[in-house]
Amino acid sequence: MTADHAAPLTAVILAAGQGTRMKSPLPKVLHQLCGRPMVHHVVDAALRAGAADVVVVVGHGRDEVTSQLTAAFGDRVRTAVQETQRGTGDAVRCALPQLRADAHAVLLLCGDTPLLHPDELSHLWTALDAARGPLAMLTMNVADPTGYGRILRDAEGQVIGIREHKDASPAERAITEVNPGVYVARTDFLREALTRITTDNAQGELYLTDIVAQAATAGGTASLASRDPGSLAGINDRAQLAAAEDILYARIADGFRRKGATIRASARIDAGVDIEPDAVIEHHVVLRGATRIGAGALVDVGSVLTDVTVAAGAALKPYTVGQRSTIGEAAQIGPFSHLRPDSEIHAEAHIGNFVETKKTVVRRGAKANHLAYLGDGDIGEGANVGAGTIFCNYDGFKKHRTEIGPGAFIGSDSQLIAPVRIGAGAYVGTGTTVTRDVPDDALAIGRAKQENKEGYASRLKARLKAGK
Amino acid sequence: MTADHAAPLTAVILAAGQGTRMKSPLPKVLHQLCGRPMVHHVVDAALRAGAADVVVVVGHGRDEVTSQLTAAFGDRVRTAVQETQRGTGDAVRCALPQLRADAHAVLLLCGDTPLLHPDELSHLWTALDAARGPLAMLTMNVADPTGYGRILRDAEGQVIGIREHKDASPAERAITEVNPGVYVARTDFLREALTRITTDNAQGELYLTDIVAQAATAGGTASLASRDPGSLAGINDRAQLAAAEDILYARIADGFRRKGATIRASARIDAGVDIEPDAVIEHHVVLRGATRIGAGALVDVGSVLTDVTVAAGAALKPYTVGQRSTIGEAAQIGPFSHLRPDSEIHAEAHIGNFVETKKTVVRRGAKANHLAYLGDGDIGEGANVGAGTIFCNYDGFKKHRTEIGPGAFIGSDSQLIAPVRIGAGAYVGTGTTVTRDVPDDALAIGRAKQENKEGYASRLKARLKAGK
Amino acid sequence: MTADHAAPLTAVILAAGQGTRMKSPLPKVLHQLCGRPMVHHVVDAALRAGAADVVVVVGHGRDEVTSQLTAAFGDRVRTAVQETQRGTGDAVRCALPQLRADAHAVLLLCGDTPLLHPDELSHLWTALDAARGPLAMLTMNVADPTGYGRILRDAEGQVIGIREHKDASPAERAITEVNPGVYVARTDFLREALTRITTDNAQGELYLTDIVAQAATAGGTASLASRDPGSLAGINDRAQLAAAEDILYARIADGFRRKGATIRASARIDAGVDIEPDAVIEHHVVLRGATRIGAGALVDVGSVLTDVTVAAGAALKPYTVGQRSTIGEAAQIGPFSHLRPDSEIHAEAHIGNFVETKKTVVRRGAKANHLAYLGDGDIGEGANVGAGTIFCNYDGFKKHRTEIGPGAFIGSDSQLIAPVRIGAGAYVGTGTTVTRDVPDDALAIGRAKQENKEGYASRLKARLKAGK
Repeated sequence: MTADHAAPLTAVILAAGQGTRMKSPLPKVLHQLCGRPMVHHVVDAALRAGAADVVVVVGHGRDEVTSQLTAAFGDRVRTAVQETQRGTGDAVRCALPQLRADAHAVLLLCGDTPLLHPDELSHLWTALDAARGPLAMLTMNVADPTGYGRILRDAEGQVIGIREHKDASPAERAITEVNPGVYVARTDFLREALTRITTDNAQGELYLTDIVAQAATAGGTASLASRDPGSLAGINDRAQLAAAEDILYARIADGFRRKGATIRASARIDAGVDIEPDAVIEHHVVLRGATRIGAGALVDVGSVLTDVTVAAGAALKPYTVGQRSTIGEAAQIGPFSHLRPDSEIHAEAHIGNFVETKKTVVRRGAKANHLAYLGDGDIGEGANVGAGTIFCNYDGFKKHRTEIGPGAFIGSDSQLIAPVRIGAGAYVGTGTTVTRDVPDDALAIGRAKQENKEGYASRLKARLKAGK
Repeated sequence: MTADHAAPLTAVILAAGQGTRMKSPLPKVLHQLCGRPMVHHVVDAALRAGAADVVVVVGHGRDEVTSQLTAAFGDRVRTAVQETQRGTGDAVRCALPQLRADAHAVLLLCGDTPLLHPDELSHLWTALDAARGPLAMLTMNVADPTGYGRILRDAEGQVIGIREHKDASPAERAITEVNPGVYVARTDFLREALTRITTDNAQGELYLTDIVAQAATAGGTASLASRDPGSLAGINDRAQLAAAEDILYARIADGFRRKGATIRASARIDAGVDIEPDAVIEHHVVLRGATRIGAGALVDVGSVLTDVTVAAGAALKPYTVGQRSTIGEAAQIGPFSHLRPDSEIHAEAHIGNFVETKKTVVRRGAKANHLAYLGDGDIGEGANVGAGTIFCNYDGFKKHRTEIGPGAFIGSDSQLIAPVRIGAGAYVGTGTTVTRDVPDDALAIGRAKQENKEGYASRLKARLKAGK
Repeated sequence: MTADHAAPLTAVILAAGQGTRMKSPLPKVLHQLCGRPMVHHVVDAALRAGAADVVVVVGHGRDEVTSQLTAAFGDRVRTAVQETQRGTGDAVRCALPQLRADAHAVLLLCGDTPLLHPDELSHLWTALDAARGPLAMLTMNVADPTGYGRILRDAEGQVIGIREHKDASPAERAITEVNPGVYVARTDFLREALTRITTDNAQGELYLTDIVAQAATAGGTASLASRDPGSLAGINDRAQLAAAEDILYARIADGFRRKGATIRASARIDAGVDIEPDAVIEHHVVLRGATRIGAGALVDVGSVLTDVTVAAGAALKPYTVGQRSTIGEAAQIGPFSHLRPDSEIHAEAHIGNFVETKKTVVRRGAKANHLAYLGDGDIGEGANVGAGTIFCNYDGFKKHRTEIGPGAFIGSDSQLIAPVRIGAGAYVGTGTTVTRDVPDDALAIGRAKQENKEGYASRLKARLKAGK
């Protein structure tokens, strides 16, 4: 995506604001879209546009913002603190000491614009390289420019400045070409220009936009009209957040579709997910975290997976819910299965409806098809766990493990009181409470004998009906 | 929202039509959007625009319409009957006797336009107050005016009349400014004008629109172009209903978002629901009835709640389904839990996967995490109900209650045959059928002893394989 | 929809391409929208427009395409093979031998345009009948014509040819009226014209579009501007597929809405489904295959039905999942029920939460309301199956059947080891493992007696806490 450039680019991202309209204790830029904080999307766009590194200007919630950025991006991102919010010009000033010495140009972005197209930023950088002047900026045409800074041009059409909405005359307010706040500036120009901006305006703030007027006398500002003004929108409240998130979800899904996955329109794929070709992601599915879906796998309607790895050819039926688990090749899960963390379902194993697993390995070809709780266990290859089986892993104080040998058959409605081991090929009779180990090839059984009391049902019913 | 007005406003809403294109025995205006009948949304808009009271003109299904209006709005809404459908002018005539004596102005609306913006209606009222003439109306510009009444203006641009589509000349049909049917009229003018309308038109009906021509000779009609023509659309079939409903759902969600809730785009929040700030409503959630979601609560993917109150900080995992229940602070529910009516889940209690509750209190910190049916019960503080536990509340004739004392531990796969009481701190062994009360601190146990028959499994399997 | 025409129409559909941008081993035209292969939607549009029969030109994956067409349409559709892809003109040539002798006109369509409106095709046919010349074609105006063939017109506005994008001059590229590739041609003209097309163009292919220039000298081409250019879009990748599918889903749902069904916007109804009036299909429901929903039935949130027949007045609560089953009048199912293939739920029967049925008949008024596995069974009228009941149908080798007589009562947590028969009116005690038949009116019971060990719980807990 990045063209060949003479010298490295550093990005500066303004992320110091609180975002009061978000109505939240959380700093605005940490609100999430598609599973990632807003500012991460901006950093990502800068890096993909070719920025060698990124300086994020933080203020409100600076510790939280910094720690989340570091966790996600490591040393590719540094932060600079803006102690008091004195305007965008002041914010960029705060970042200057953090610029790397060899940064030839600086990409200036806002931390609340998560829909930026990296290729458009990259084109802007290229435009600066080709320009005579020290500055390049995006512009956009909007039907209703209220609130935006207007682009002022001279008779030759050269950009000569920006007028903030609050400072604009009626004639200027009629201008529909506006400033989305995306620039690439030569570093030396930027350093110099920021020393000269003043607070002489309606807000009494240091406007970054004043550098445009300065560039006019230093060779001019190259402008590039955005192909997608919607991508430059800033997020100010949670309604805008929801709308932007939906656009991002569509982009993420289209990316995987173009690589060969089938993804229904209502599925929601978070930014950290990966999906291989020919996988099918059905209606209303939600994929979160670091979920990975293998080639040709099916994730059927409404499944919700968080940090789950699904191998090639596995089939997840409707309403499979899973967290931090793995599912092997050609395994079959669902509907209504719940894989809690540390479930390992191996190849060709089956987990059926109303079955919960937790910290349990289900080995190749083993099956638990109905109504079971399988916690803290290990189920051997080809074993069959009957309907209603419960691993009694908890005694009120501690958790204990259940092991089932390969080829074992656990009859329906058995309770295996852990710690316990069922041997290879063993058979547990229906309804047995297993309290001690079962040797290989043994039959374990423990149940009361059925008695039939003839003619008793109608008498019993009469008694119950009478309430006795 | 309402400006200062000299005298009260009454709204008249036309809701007498059957709506044959709805293909339904239900009167058109009772079809629901976002959990409320269509006409309720119109009444609501009128009240929020400042109407002191509302007269709804009913005809088809009048009893049903009247009773639903009364149930929702009490005496703020009266109805007037239009016996035969002789046109909109006739319908308003039927409402005249119901106008309150002091009503200075009348807001005229259609009962099948559920997307009206109250503030636009309020502006229209203000426009009338400021006008010289006796009438103010909304107009809208549409790309395809087919079917609409066209706005006729004189050379000075003053509105002089409305031409219904069927009566319009080719030149008039080219007019794209049309009549959405929303007026505010001075009451005395309206009474007078309605005596003079005639059936001299293509339909042979009494058109309300004829009052516009009369106003032209009485000081003129003030017109206000709608900012959102889509909001004035009438609903004529269920396809239009579905489209309008989706717009309303978006508005409802945006309202809560702006107050500080996070609501994913695909969630559907009915009109009677309330959501506090910092609650998170995830993808595909459906909230119905009088559901209340507390501050900071999480309602995860696909949960469906009807008349459920969720306290602050509670976490509902994916696919929690509940009706007429309460969930306490920091409680954890789901996934795949079903809270049937009169479930009371207290603070910090846990209800897990494949668990159903009904008329049951689950007290502070109690847990039932897996595969259980808890009907007609009371579970004490801190008690633990094991996987597979069943409250046997039904004997085929009556329902009986199960009580579990605080701190009790119910082993997995136990059946508690109600009526029965498990004492405080008692322990029920795994797989026990509890038929009588268990004293405090007692251990109840009842199960057959496990027997291991060594080497028997392979013989058994051989026998089963042979089909014997 | 079809007007009166002098002579029959045959449709030729071009479906030989691989569709490399689909990134799939499956031929492009077999990728599905709304549960049907793309090409089936095109065939359907041709038949509904009045085509007497259809010839599909196949190439890549010809056997698979042919067999799917035959399975769906029988002998109304024939295929013709294009061995090598030498252009659209060549493809139509390959179809000529398959044209029926009496075909007066040929409708030419692309197999990757699944959104065609049949009535627009029909109008085009009518336009040809009314025209002097031998050809009629749709045109469309698009904002960005890149990639499309441009419509060339003479000074009188007559269509005189098509210029493919790659062959177009800059002036021609500015033309925004383009060729969607939909024609009706007189058969004799078409046969003649195709003998004269050449490979003298940028692609070196035989362009079908060359027939337009030929028609100009044979009476001219009638053109009809499409009312809905979006409906003519070709599908080239899976992102376009997903977008087109969503449009089709909206059309399908609107069709049922106009006939009187209520269908929420997020429901997804496949092309083979039927829904009767006054049925209610709630949010996020997915209906697939040959599913039928009867009048007044409710399918509540998130239900997923494949080949399920739901009778009038049945109520399916949220998250009912079913395959190849039938549900009787006024039956109640769900939430979280799973009806696997060959479940027959009769009138007024109830299947409740966490219940799975498979190859099982549940007769009139019978109930299984909670947590049960009912496989290979027959449950008599009015019988009550308690919570936690399991039909133990599988012994590790074979499946066996369970029969429950009318009016029987199966106590909670019973296991019925098949093959087994519970007699009419019989009563099975809670927690019984039923290993042999129960006579009519008998009480079957088999469980260990509950013992209460007083004061033992705290001692037990102390022991467990100590980990002993």
